[in-house]
Amino acid sequence: MSEQTITVTLATEKKAKPDASTLVFGKTFTDHMFMMDYTEGKGWHDAQILPYQPITLDPASVIFHYGQTVFEGMKAYLTKEEKVLLFRPEKNMERLNKSNERLCIPAIDEEFALSALKQLITVDKDWIPTEEGTSLYIRPFIISTQPYLGVAASISYKFMIILSPVGSYYKEGVKPVKIFVENEYVRAVSGGTGSAKTAGNYAASLKAQQIAAEKGYSQVLWLDGVEKKYIEEVGAMNVFFKINGEVVTPVLNGSILEGVTRGSIIELLKHWDIPVTERKITVEEIFEAHKNGELEEAFGTGTAAVISPIGEFFWNEQVIVLNNNETGELAKKLYDTITNIQNGKIEDPFGWTVEV
Amino acid sequence: MSEQTITVTLATEKKAKPDASTLVFGKTFTDHMFMMDYTEGKGWHDAQILPYQPITLDPASVIFHYGQTVFEGMKAYLTKEEKVLLFRPEKNMERLNKSNERLCIPAIDEEFALSALKQLITVDKDWIPTEEGTSLYIRPFIISTQPYLGVAASISYKFMIILSPVGSYYKEGVKPVKIFVENEYVRAVSGGTGSAKTAGNYAASLKAQQIAAEKGYSQVLWLDGVEKKYIEEVGAMNVFFKINGEVVTPVLNGSILEGVTRGSIIELLKHWDIPVTERKITVEEIFEAHKNGELEEAFGTGTAAVISPIGEFFWNEQVIVLNNNETGELAKKLYDTITNIQNGKIEDPFGWTVEV
Ligand SMILES: Cc1ncc(COP(=O)(O)O)c(C=O)c1O
Ligand SMILES: Cc1ncc(COP(=O)(O)O)c(C=O)c1O
Repeated sequence: MSEQTITVTLATEKKAKPDASTLVFGKTFTDHMFMMDYTEGKGWHDAQILPYQPITLDPASVIFHYGQTVFEGMKAYLTKEEKVLLFRPEKNMERLNKSNERLCIPAIDEEFALSALKQLITVDKDWIPTEEGTSLYIRPFIISTQPYLGVAASISYKFMIILSPVGSYYKEGVKPVKIFVENEYVRAVSGGTGSAKTAGNYAASLKAQQIAAEKGYSQVLWLDGVEKKYIEEVGAMNVFFKINGEVVTPVLNGSILEGVTRGSIIELLKHWDIPVTERKITVEEIFEAHKNGELEEAFGTGTAAVISPIGEFFWNEQVIVLNNNETGELAKKLYDTITNIQNGKIEDPFGWTVEV
Repeated sequence: MSEQTITVTLATEKKAKPDASTLVFGKTFTDHMFMMDYTEGKGWHDAQILPYQPITLDPASVIFHYGQTVFEGMKAYLTKEEKVLLFRPEKNMERLNKSNERLCIPAIDEEFALSALKQLITVDKDWIPTEEGTSLYIRPFIISTQPYLGVAASISYKFMIILSPVGSYYKEGVKPVKIFVENEYVRAVSGGTGSAKTAGNYAASLKAQQIAAEKGYSQVLWLDGVEKKYIEEVGAMNVFFKINGEVVTPVLNGSILEGVTRGSIIELLKHWDIPVTERKITVEEIFEAHKNGELEEAFGTGTAAVISPIGEFFWNEQVIVLNNNETGELAKKLYDTITNIQNGKIEDPFGWTVEV
């Protein structure tokens, strides 16, 4: 499949680029997109880069009824030297195929997908914003297109990549968020689709997220679906705690996503000789550690915000405030190090960045 | 909203109707469809009946990424007197709104939706097949259309209804199916979306369904996601057991769908003075009852097959065969009674059928 060529059709009219200061996450899209089709018996075919445009689907398409779909999220950064850097993109393509496996979607050729992505970014290179904290968000996704109402894996698919220039996640610098620990609604359970990046997990999260927002909390912390005791993840982020000098994060248990940022932070902490453990963590333990004055920091990690320090947890009518609602030292150091590696401002000792 | 009018645009060319004997579930669609839009601030608007056709959506639409969507499934039957009957359609519209509530989708006007459905069926009335066991399958569904990659409820939607003539579910009469009891994969868990009719539940089911099919089993029996002990439902059906003269079915626990067929069967059994109980049922209990010679029948219930007798269960390397792999007396009686009420062949003492 790697020998496939990509047909390129350039947009005859280019859209006006938004002002970097007004950029909102995921609302503006670039001039082009990547698209490739899968047909049973034929495999993936007809790779093309074409002007960003609506797609046309039969109303009976599997995606509309049974949600057979997977996606990824990553970013491209422009360095001061005008080089375009991706952050561990092979990890995202690998995870896309893991998600495909769970959702019964045919695998993509990871190497080809990465080269297609690079080509698409090159075409839309002048869409990468340059201001501090900005980047080009990349959304690869696959949807099932067979017009058939039987509950079964589709025999046709579309693999697409769209690009969106995004602003700094923190308009006034990194700021701690307030987190609502969810006791009623469940996002995912072991044996379900929680470890895949697929639509249904996010659809399931909307209700709890809405309720938390009404109470003034910006994100939900999910507990395990079985005992509602163990910490899973936060919205679209993995979560870390620093307790008494040790960093802990929930172990991969089949119901949380294996975040690329999560993995990078674990490596970075080890590199710095800071003790880090992946294990089961109860929410009770976190509240207990806070009471004992041992909970030093908590933060979420993900592509969108990179590091999101947590200033407050609400659980069972109890509220704890962390670190005086200020960004912790470790969260700050991790944020600076990772974003500086991503932007090419400091040396990348891990070989994480890939030049386009 | 009930005062809305529906704009009707008729197809200028009609498609050839398939031969009733070749009908496959959910592959053929009629000449027209219903469509209505939702826009924040404006509500549901622009109801129309128009020629069946592809729809055009921005690739960033919420439906493609976060699966915010709900659907329904019901049938229309043509009686020998050429009357068109629906079976408890108000239950489906009610359930659609329950699903909407869970998925943060704005409610529809149930009465208006039902009148729109009737009008659509009237337009495509000559698509309803007349052969024994055939019917017109009805698929109402709502998809989220806002082009936005933030994880949040969409601010725009499309409500659509499409129609598909379907053949008899049993080509050679009602025949028992073989069921695989799933120990590893989980469909839904309490606190999740299992009691809503939404895409993610079905996406989550594909993998186990595929594995069961490879082993020669036509459907998966789902166990609860917490203890993997209690019986939930079968594929797209609720499940009933007759043990020692008593009928039992899993109680509605928040993770299974409240089937319209299920509710009708419970009413019918009560009407016949056959003891029926909704309660928690372990799979162990079922295998135990079989060993003791007390498991008389088992069957699935749902709109597609109405009643689907179960001839075999596979669980933990054990196999039990029920009733000599023949359709049980009760399953047969329920099937005949319900389908005859649906087809208008016998009197409907419950007021379940609604004439179009
Ligand atoms: C559910 C969930 N958990 C965690 C993450 C963090 O993963 P990553 O660091 O790869 O962005 C994401 C997404 O980005 C997510 O959607
Ligand atoms: C998961 C699930 N359970 C049960 C049923 C049975 O419901 P009903 O009898 O309303 O068709 C269905 C669908 O039809 C279903 O999708």
